[in-house]
Amino acid sequence: MTSQNPVFIPGPTNLPEVLRKAVDMPTIDHRSPVFGKILHPALEGVKKVLKTETGKVFAFPSTGTGGWETAITNTLSPGDKVLATRNGMFSHRWIDMCQRHGLDVQVVMQEWGEGVPADKFEEILTADKAHEIKVVLATHNETATGVKSDIAAVRRALDNAKHPALLFVDGVSSIACYDFRMDEWGVDVAVTGSQKGFMLPPGLAIVGFSPKAMDAVEAAKLSRTFFDIRDMAKGYANNGYPYTPPVGLLNGLNLSCQMLLDEGLENVFARHNRIAEGVRRAVAAWGLSLCATRPELYSDSVSAIRVPEGFDANKIVGHALNAYGVAFGTGLGDVAGKVFRIGHLGMLSDVLALSGIATAEMVMADLGLKVQLGSGVAAAQEHYRQSIPAANKAAA
Amino acid sequence: MTSQNPVFIPGPTNLPEVLRKAVDMPTIDHRSPVFGKILHPALEGVKKVLKTETGKVFAFPSTGTGGWETAITNTLSPGDKVLATRNGMFSHRWIDMCQRHGLDVQVVMQEWGEGVPADKFEEILTADKAHEIKVVLATHNETATGVKSDIAAVRRALDNAKHPALLFVDGVSSIACYDFRMDEWGVDVAVTGSQKGFMLPPGLAIVGFSPKAMDAVEAAKLSRTFFDIRDMAKGYANNGYPYTPPVGLLNGLNLSCQMLLDEGLENVFARHNRIAEGVRRAVAAWGLSLCATRPELYSDSVSAIRVPEGFDANKIVGHALNAYGVAFGTGLGDVAGKVFRIGHLGMLSDVLALSGIATAEMVMADLGLKVQLGSGVAAAQEHYRQSIPAANKAAA
Amino acid sequence: MTSQNPVFIPGPTNLPEVLRKAVDMPTIDHRSPVFGKILHPALEGVKKVLKTETGKVFAFPSTGTGGWETAITNTLSPGDKVLATRNGMFSHRWIDMCQRHGLDVQVVMQEWGEGVPADKFEEILTADKAHEIKVVLATHNETATGVKSDIAAVRRALDNAKHPALLFVDGVSSIACYDFRMDEWGVDVAVTGSQKGFMLPPGLAIVGFSPKAMDAVEAAKLSRTFFDIRDMAKGYANNGYPYTPPVGLLNGLNLSCQMLLDEGLENVFARHNRIAEGVRRAVAAWGLSLCATRPELYSDSVSAIRVPEGFDANKIVGHALNAYGVAFGTGLGDVAGKVFRIGHLGMLSDVLALSGIATAEMVMADLGLKVQLGSGVAAAQEHYRQSIPAANKAAA
Amino acid sequence: MTSQNPVFIPGPTNLPEVLRKAVDMPTIDHRSPVFGKILHPALEGVKKVLKTETGKVFAFPSTGTGGWETAITNTLSPGDKVLATRNGMFSHRWIDMCQRHGLDVQVVMQEWGEGVPADKFEEILTADKAHEIKVVLATHNETATGVKSDIAAVRRALDNAKHPALLFVDGVSSIACYDFRMDEWGVDVAVTGSQKGFMLPPGLAIVGFSPKAMDAVEAAKLSRTFFDIRDMAKGYANNGYPYTPPVGLLNGLNLSCQMLLDEGLENVFARHNRIAEGVRRAVAAWGLSLCATRPELYSDSVSAIRVPEGFDANKIVGHALNAYGVAFGTGLGDVAGKVFRIGHLGMLSDVLALSGIATAEMVMADLGLKVQLGSGVAAAQEHYRQSIPAANKAAA
Repeated sequence: MTSQNPVFIPGPTNLPEVLRKAVDMPTIDHRSPVFGKILHPALEGVKKVLKTETGKVFAFPSTGTGGWETAITNTLSPGDKVLATRNGMFSHRWIDMCQRHGLDVQVVMQEWGEGVPADKFEEILTADKAHEIKVVLATHNETATGVKSDIAAVRRALDNAKHPALLFVDGVSSIACYDFRMDEWGVDVAVTGSQKGFMLPPGLAIVGFSPKAMDAVEAAKLSRTFFDIRDMAKGYANNGYPYTPPVGLLNGLNLSCQMLLDEGLENVFARHNRIAEGVRRAVAAWGLSLCATRPELYSDSVSAIRVPEGFDANKIVGHALNAYGVAFGTGLGDVAGKVFRIGHLGMLSDVLALSGIATAEMVMADLGLKVQLGSGVAAAQEHYRQSIPAANKAAA
Repeated sequence: MTSQNPVFIPGPTNLPEVLRKAVDMPTIDHRSPVFGKILHPALEGVKKVLKTETGKVFAFPSTGTGGWETAITNTLSPGDKVLATRNGMFSHRWIDMCQRHGLDVQVVMQEWGEGVPADKFEEILTADKAHEIKVVLATHNETATGVKSDIAAVRRALDNAKHPALLFVDGVSSIACYDFRMDEWGVDVAVTGSQKGFMLPPGLAIVGFSPKAMDAVEAAKLSRTFFDIRDMAKGYANNGYPYTPPVGLLNGLNLSCQMLLDEGLENVFARHNRIAEGVRRAVAAWGLSLCATRPELYSDSVSAIRVPEGFDANKIVGHALNAYGVAFGTGLGDVAGKVFRIGHLGMLSDVLALSGIATAEMVMADLGLKVQLGSGVAAAQEHYRQSIPAANKAAA
Repeated sequence: MTSQNPVFIPGPTNLPEVLRKAVDMPTIDHRSPVFGKILHPALEGVKKVLKTETGKVFAFPSTGTGGWETAITNTLSPGDKVLATRNGMFSHRWIDMCQRHGLDVQVVMQEWGEGVPADKFEEILTADKAHEIKVVLATHNETATGVKSDIAAVRRALDNAKHPALLFVDGVSSIACYDFRMDEWGVDVAVTGSQKGFMLPPGLAIVGFSPKAMDAVEAAKLSRTFFDIRDMAKGYANNGYPYTPPVGLLNGLNLSCQMLLDEGLENVFARHNRIAEGVRRAVAAWGLSLCATRPELYSDSVSAIRVPEGFDANKIVGHALNAYGVAFGTGLGDVAGKVFRIGHLGMLSDVLALSGIATAEMVMADLGLKVQLGSGVAAAQEHYRQSIPAANKAAA
Repeated sequence: MTSQNPVFIPGPTNLPEVLRKAVDMPTIDHRSPVFGKILHPALEGVKKVLKTETGKVFAFPSTGTGGWETAITNTLSPGDKVLATRNGMFSHRWIDMCQRHGLDVQVVMQEWGEGVPADKFEEILTADKAHEIKVVLATHNETATGVKSDIAAVRRALDNAKHPALLFVDGVSSIACYDFRMDEWGVDVAVTGSQKGFMLPPGLAIVGFSPKAMDAVEAAKLSRTFFDIRDMAKGYANNGYPYTPPVGLLNGLNLSCQMLLDEGLENVFARHNRIAEGVRRAVAAWGLSLCATRPELYSDSVSAIRVPEGFDANKIVGHALNAYGVAFGTGLGDVAGKVFRIGHLGMLSDVLALSGIATAEMVMADLGLKVQLGSGVAAAQEHYRQSIPAANKAAA
């Protein structure tokens, strides 16, 4: 029998019942006024989640990768210079995409496990007197390494260098999981998807464009049609899309935003932190360490856990699936085989997190790693007990 | 946010996706031939699960309680004598029902935690030379105490006493969870519901009648119409029901039987035993004991766990729900406040069971009981690791 | 490919999406406080739909037939006298049930197609000086014949006769379809089910008991346990049930009542009348007549249509299903083969009703009946055009 | 109350229950082997629907528009010459996309209502001795005008001209509705989406590439990443995607193909033709004409119906929605206000088509057009009666 165990991959997340039901809707006429009543509240909801008042939000039938392509093709021209760091698989892929679109990417190499190097960025930007760099790319949450970068620091780097470059942030696995402040941090393009913090099935690339980014659109020479935000903006103004919109996902997005805002974003972030911290306590109890090198880099969305030298981390993922029907994340790219990942974003509870921790213990023991059964669970339990939200206590 | 944690009540169980989808069907004409193609395979499937070839199966839009009423009103007349034991809330209620229908119930009192006393039954039946006792009632699985009784032994008691009484068995929380052999054990009426081993929502009383029980129907003088199996049998012969059938639930029952038979009943039973044994190891690790007094009485459907003298077990259930969003079962009747129950029947996995065990540990610790965090989890993990089904290993 | 055509049977009705989704819920602990928050609003909602302030509502996991059994077993004793009329299959069955429970039923025979004979009832009740008649049974909507009876007139008959008998009304296919006034009409027990006006799957017997009916419960000697409203009332007082409640259906019932009350009961009734009248115009255009003999008897839930003498009406139902995948209702009992039925209760629209009318035309033409294609459709269209609700017009 | 009327827009279509349920699945690990068991059968199924053995199929989380962009960016370089005709909104948009990507499009203007001019194409191709034209674009079904073009004729034009250009076909609203023969017609890229003949929600761009088209990929200089089929092909080879795949939609696509192939493609096409022909008979009975100028151009997916000169067709669409809750398609582009459209593709039945036809009649009458109520319905009924599929007759 299929087990219906939760998944512990770093997205797509487990899906809340109500969001599944919101997505699974019968066909409506997407050219009728009914559609506008789904679309606009969804876009407004996303703005609040992004903490932007001045930005414009667009949702494409695509994925986060399509969101990246939207960001660059709508703002840049072939040969334009871009500053980026490579500190994980997803920053790597974004750089690769830029190069394939003919951009000139200045890459600051970082160890995987480190964050975006705001100080080096500041140096480079300060040195770029001609302001040839048009855009700075930053990955807020490196899903591959479980590293959270300091976007406010990147903004300070730009400001200190008095550099006019746009700031593009990949917030695919951070937005709606931990704090993201588009306006305050001066983010010009924010990119995310439906299947992470919004707890929906995949299928939406969600982007926020600042007024400054919008100003760059007309001059941008990179070719695009599907991802052209001008067509999208024109569509929205008429309660429509330039092509068939994914109505069900947008209906789900609308409800998802309502749920997040009703819970309170700060509560959502606290919930993610609480569950993540339990996982980290377990990792420490196992005597293992995270790929993220310092506590301030620890991601509340996903933990990438280093296995002992010489042990193939992929075996953990394979055995967990075969023996216990549980999905963890494998290591990607430079850390393939060196880490396995426990996703703890989106729809998850302390109780379900414990089942993932317990499974990881069994798997590691089965594979001969020296892990005491129950040790990680106990450490996480202790944390969860100490941090029960006040609302739950009150009810008790 | 709602947590979507699994429930650990002894039924209704967690629901498999595919069964929810089978139940949630659009309206069809229940008087059309389409309905027969749902009804008959469902009834045939139940026969296989009951391990009967000669019995007839009926499914009423009702619950297990309605199944009991079906059993007695279709076979007995006011004043008829019935032999039963009271060893838990559900056997108690069945006795009460008999009395309210004017039957003369000879009750053998048992401590709650004990099983059906086959030896005492044999004494009584042997002494009943006039064969005044028409029916012997036995509860296979006492959901309130987590006690499994030996139905084969009850059959031997009848045989040894050469007594012609009918044998009625409440298998509500045993059937499709652990072994039930209607024909081999000479069970004359077997009673169950949709919401336990069949992993469906509540709403069906499912009964199996042996040929001997069928022979008693015409002479039975207890009044009934809704539960009259003669109307039901006539309906079935015409692919219909004497009233509006619960088509969705029957569709689900059909699929549920297919799933159970595809998995193999012995595998289903082994799965239940494996998960239950993990829970029992945890209980032992906590230094607590079960309500069931001896290992041969331990139920693979539900464990009723005694709390230390003077501690109110209901506080565990309340706190688990409020603080962690997890549902356990309270103690009922004579053991109210003395036990809490972990249901482990139907749709559940080792991994999810561990989340329930871990939750119980947190709850007990929160409430000041001396339970070492992780101790029960470790004991269960050890059992689950040692007993991974061969199929899962092979895939590894 | 399955067509997903609407059904035109007189219940179960087509199911609204939102109600299907409300019913299809994951398992919750029915002994937890969460359940009370579903149960009590559902019961309160039903009270409003029944237009009763003083009555008590009970919902059993059963069907309308179980509702009848609830009505009689909770109020009567063997040998008690009951007055009823037999004017269709459902009144016939209720009489049969009473007889099987040992009641003494005085039956007034009526032609099928006629309503409850309030005048004859008044005669009989007036003659019953000893007040031996304990209960008067009336079927508000005879589903088999499409006849609506005048319950207010039956109440007047009782009042004129100054007779203290209880008045029990089968409102299975009238309640939530057309006007039902429990308190005003002095109905003592109202019986319905989930699958008609409430637009839910079958599985609930819903009954309303007046204070006078409640007063009769303790003295009632008919045996019952499953349907004993005393156990049910005790359960409700503790936010529970005497057995496993059908949580999903109750959740659906709660939402269904909300929907009906939000729409406004008078609007719900007007909607049913509008759709029904379209069907009746079509029948007239075909040159056929209804089983109901006079306009004041015409039911807004279902139309039973007489076919020409010598023609087997069942062929219409069979051919509609085979050739066009559409379900109509067959004739039952005395009118089997003489009528076919178009159900138009619950979730239906003018537009979908037209598809049913158009199908009936094709079927009759296929089978050689003299029906002009499009004639009934045109008559119904004319009515629907003339009677568009103001709200829809306003939007236009 | 919402009516749950079917929609009559030319896609997204009404959704079959089983496909909705297949799409609405819980999260699985898309990097696990489980995903490959969904992906590959889905792709193989599409190949059979496209009638290709040598082609490769790719499914992007996107829409048909993304499919167009996939076609051109993977095969062409800036400045490349493309031959196309503009005979409706969708061919217009494809041309526009080519121009925005810097291609040199030779456009043959056609009246809207005409098909692809194979003869003119042959002239142009024959004249292009230097073989500067790299690709010929053809829209198989112009959704805006309800025009079906002859793709075999376009292939003959290429062959007669002995021209090596690639042939790209927009089959968004033809594939899985009427006959499409990728291999036989020498189609090099076929483009479709999930929401038309496959009867799924929108969200997938589905493309088939011939070996000849695959050969063009490496040399193609148009920039792309998200739509790069090389990344996609590499992903498929490893049971994966270059980004998060839309697992639910692919699961639905797999089942959709199974359903189509089980029904038999020729039966699927016959079903579409039968329903479409009924609509066309209705249009004729109304005294109106189609936008498509000749019977051989009539589309079996959608009928665009010309309204009388001076009447605004958009009023029909608006009034249908407001007064009757039914969605028809508006006219687009050159025929905006001149036509309204009845979509009859995907999940629809004769019976439901009749409800659409009946609604159109009421709407036109309400708006003062001279249409006899029931006249179109009768014409369609006559056709549906005469053409009942043998299987349905047999059952009768």
